[in-house]
Amino acid sequence: MYKVDLNADIGESFGNYTIGMDAEVQKYITSANVACGYHAGDPIVMEKTIALAKENGVAVGAHPGFPDLMGFGRRKMMISPAEAKAYIMYQVGALKAFTDAAGLKMQHVKPHGAFYNMAAVDENLAIAICEGIKAVDPDLIMLGLAGSKHISAAEKVGIRVASEVFADRNYMEDGTLVPRSRSDAKIADPELAITRVIRMVKEGKVEAVTGKDIDIKADSICVHGDNPKAVDFVRTIREKLQAEGIEVVNIAEVTG
Amino acid sequence: MYKVDLNADIGESFGNYTIGMDAEVQKYITSANVACGYHAGDPIVMEKTIALAKENGVAVGAHPGFPDLMGFGRRKMMISPAEAKAYIMYQVGALKAFTDAAGLKMQHVKPHGAFYNMAAVDENLAIAICEGIKAVDPDLIMLGLAGSKHISAAEKVGIRVASEVFADRNYMEDGTLVPRSRSDAKIADPELAITRVIRMVKEGKVEAVTGKDIDIKADSICVHGDNPKAVDFVRTIREKLQAEGIEVVNIAEVTG
Amino acid sequence: MYKVDLNADIGESFGNYTIGMDAEVQKYITSANVACGYHAGDPIVMEKTIALAKENGVAVGAHPGFPDLMGFGRRKMMISPAEAKAYIMYQVGALKAFTDAAGLKMQHVKPHGAFYNMAAVDENLAIAICEGIKAVDPDLIMLGLAGSKHISAAEKVGIRVASEVFADRNYMEDGTLVPRSRSDAKIADPELAITRVIRMVKEGKVEAVTGKDIDIKADSICVHGDNPKAVDFVRTIREKLQAEGIEVVNIAEVTG
Amino acid sequence: MYKVDLNADIGESFGNYTIGMDAEVQKYITSANVACGYHAGDPIVMEKTIALAKENGVAVGAHPGFPDLMGFGRRKMMISPAEAKAYIMYQVGALKAFTDAAGLKMQHVKPHGAFYNMAAVDENLAIAICEGIKAVDPDLIMLGLAGSKHISAAEKVGIRVASEVFADRNYMEDGTLVPRSRSDAKIADPELAITRVIRMVKEGKVEAVTGKDIDIKADSICVHGDNPKAVDFVRTIREKLQAEGIEVVNIAEVTG
Repeated sequence: MYKVDLNADIGESFGNYTIGMDAEVQKYITSANVACGYHAGDPIVMEKTIALAKENGVAVGAHPGFPDLMGFGRRKMMISPAEAKAYIMYQVGALKAFTDAAGLKMQHVKPHGAFYNMAAVDENLAIAICEGIKAVDPDLIMLGLAGSKHISAAEKVGIRVASEVFADRNYMEDGTLVPRSRSDAKIADPELAITRVIRMVKEGKVEAVTGKDIDIKADSICVHGDNPKAVDFVRTIREKLQAEGIEVVNIAEVTG
Repeated sequence: MYKVDLNADIGESFGNYTIGMDAEVQKYITSANVACGYHAGDPIVMEKTIALAKENGVAVGAHPGFPDLMGFGRRKMMISPAEAKAYIMYQVGALKAFTDAAGLKMQHVKPHGAFYNMAAVDENLAIAICEGIKAVDPDLIMLGLAGSKHISAAEKVGIRVASEVFADRNYMEDGTLVPRSRSDAKIADPELAITRVIRMVKEGKVEAVTGKDIDIKADSICVHGDNPKAVDFVRTIREKLQAEGIEVVNIAEVTG
Repeated sequence: MYKVDLNADIGESFGNYTIGMDAEVQKYITSANVACGYHAGDPIVMEKTIALAKENGVAVGAHPGFPDLMGFGRRKMMISPAEAKAYIMYQVGALKAFTDAAGLKMQHVKPHGAFYNMAAVDENLAIAICEGIKAVDPDLIMLGLAGSKHISAAEKVGIRVASEVFADRNYMEDGTLVPRSRSDAKIADPELAITRVIRMVKEGKVEAVTGKDIDIKADSICVHGDNPKAVDFVRTIREKLQAEGIEVVNIAEVTG
Repeated sequence: MYKVDLNADIGESFGNYTIGMDAEVQKYITSANVACGYHAGDPIVMEKTIALAKENGVAVGAHPGFPDLMGFGRRKMMISPAEAKAYIMYQVGALKAFTDAAGLKMQHVKPHGAFYNMAAVDENLAIAICEGIKAVDPDLIMLGLAGSKHISAAEKVGIRVASEVFADRNYMEDGTLVPRSRSDAKIADPELAITRVIRMVKEGKVEAVTGKDIDIKADSICVHGDNPKAVDFVRTIREKLQAEGIEVVNIAEVTG
């Protein structure tokens, strides 16, 4: 039986600012990455987001980011491994207060934005992140880019790990994403995107941008809830996956 | 056997900014209130502070404040009870990541600065704070101003509570502190301060600024580690308390 | 000839967060209050907002707020007069960099949210604000609540001043706004709101919530651009004012 | 007649946090780089710092940094040129409010920490910084690393420029600083440091770490006021420079 998780970033509103169609996208996803107050989110938003996830039966993970609200955590910051570890602990701990209070078990941790991208290629940073996760709760699952140093770092540190794939992105032959600066970075056709994802789940393969097939592990598919079209895509991908006999379940159920 | 706790605010450094003689004052106190990143403190400072407290055998509590680093949490902010509760949960959770990782049990929560002062007189705010504490961990002890609404709120919410007294401050007949704006707000003479504190612990009484004796419950005495003179006072008060046959132990041991 | 200004708060987006229909509302207003980075706005937003105001021929003012992004500057903060003065200078100066660069003369300063409301009733705070404005540029016009201490403070400090009225709010007999906590705080009927405003401009009178007529000075009317309905109201009020022979011009032109 | 400026970073305190011996070091320097609230400094600190500089007859410059108080602006952040320009304008404008109010002309702008270091090697970033400076006041002098891309960028943008040298650092053959990660990054001997600086000013030469002499332009020498020893060094270097017939004057006087 094939299984895959659908994850989306939610709880990215802040104070008077609302962003994302959280209520809508939560109907179709199985795991939610909840912002923890550094790049987005605030305590009130976190509390509401956890309540919403609980209502929808969506597994909750922490989505810690760089301390850069103005840049939404999307700008690289050269922080030290010690800082990375402590920032992860701080944010995961803060969110854990809300999951504990809601009687939920926190499932996973997925670093956000530039933090995620840097961890995929910088092993020292990735190890520090994984040590931070382990320090708070050794049972947490680290969700990182499939085939990246983030995954191998988690294995070295000895924590549970899940591999994330992107439906709407092209891959290089080495398994990294085609940089957004390139015109062929994205898969524009939703049908093609879904076909590719199904193959990733069933065969563990994807065609790289060069035309060559590469291996890829797809525990979880990253989807978005920014706008009605994105939410629509999530609904569709879920239906297509299920029509293909793929069970859409949360990360803990995928990774066992 | 008389017992009392000595508590001080530590871990108030931030980034490149160092404040407080944390290493020195931890030699003499029994409970430490650790800043949680809102009014002071950052994840690196929190991690180091917890390690230091562990080394010194000092019980650790969270010291959550208003989100006002520029004002060091000392300025009143009119936040709602829902915000108060969520801010407490966020900060206590963040610190708990570090105590958990260090294998320490978090002992107590003491709101900082204006948050503390407002909770002493505003029952709705105090209840929200206590609900936030309870939501994170119902075993945490709330440390608040002796005789204030903060104490009665904790009792209403049904969490453990400890009463704090001030050695260097004068009291009104109703048990509130003489406002700092008055010239007689402080007890300038260290000898007198210590004599008063010993009486608070042994007799449960203190002479108000009017000359009338009032009842006061002294579970914990607030001391400071800002400068060498303050640290010296802490050493002295500890010695004098012990010479009087008062055991200086942490809050959990005082309150049982 | 009757004259009045229509002002709205714009430039309140921040980083990845967008708020307000700035482009739409700027077609109808004559003065814009631009957020300065403390309660809302960031340097990129400020630069774009100034460019947009220039395109639309809208006069630009600074809209300084409390350093409380999480609360959008709407929560009272007990800052000192020295802090108030310095916070005003900092924010007005920051925005002035962008108006200077765009070749625009900054017209006015209107404190935001809780800062505005506190200044209306706290003369010391209001004087500090006005001194901050004067220190940066003595030619700036202070826009404050009609009939409030903010207006008299500006007169004492000796800076130019304009009186603001609210179309959608009820007034107490003493000229203050009916608190939002009361059910009769707002004027729900847009027709009535416009009729009242026209009378304020032409007769300098408004019917207080008690039924009694009171004097009111209406140099500028506060309008909003939060949503399509609000923008529609601004277009309508502008048309009705003009149909009544009232010239809709910016604050500098109203106050001469 | 030889001339050189002595510049130091001041006004880096924040809220309740005090850093630097500003009052002492201002007695010996000729130009002060004042933090603007992003990496350090706050409006109250800025106002006091400007007053102190005025008292001491020290020329004032802005010291804008990355929006990273927790990292004191010392961590590289990958901001866009548009962000760099806007962040410079915001911070320079904010400080200019205080210099204008004090009746002082702002002399220069020196980016802080990682912002400075990145500008020295990234021409696009350096050009954006210089355009931001020019946009606020085309008469401001840009102070950057001697021989770096920051200097050439300022020349391209067409603003006034001054070259900064470091007394306590070794240089590579290409004129860049020996990275702090190398053991030979610093000149430990104060006598040697001063001898080298005198030669930079008089001959325009310095011996690189390889032993080879290289050209260097020394308009201003960077000194520090962090601790008593550092302040002592500033007093000494000033005396030695003057004893060598080198006039110690501010940047505007050096560059004419």
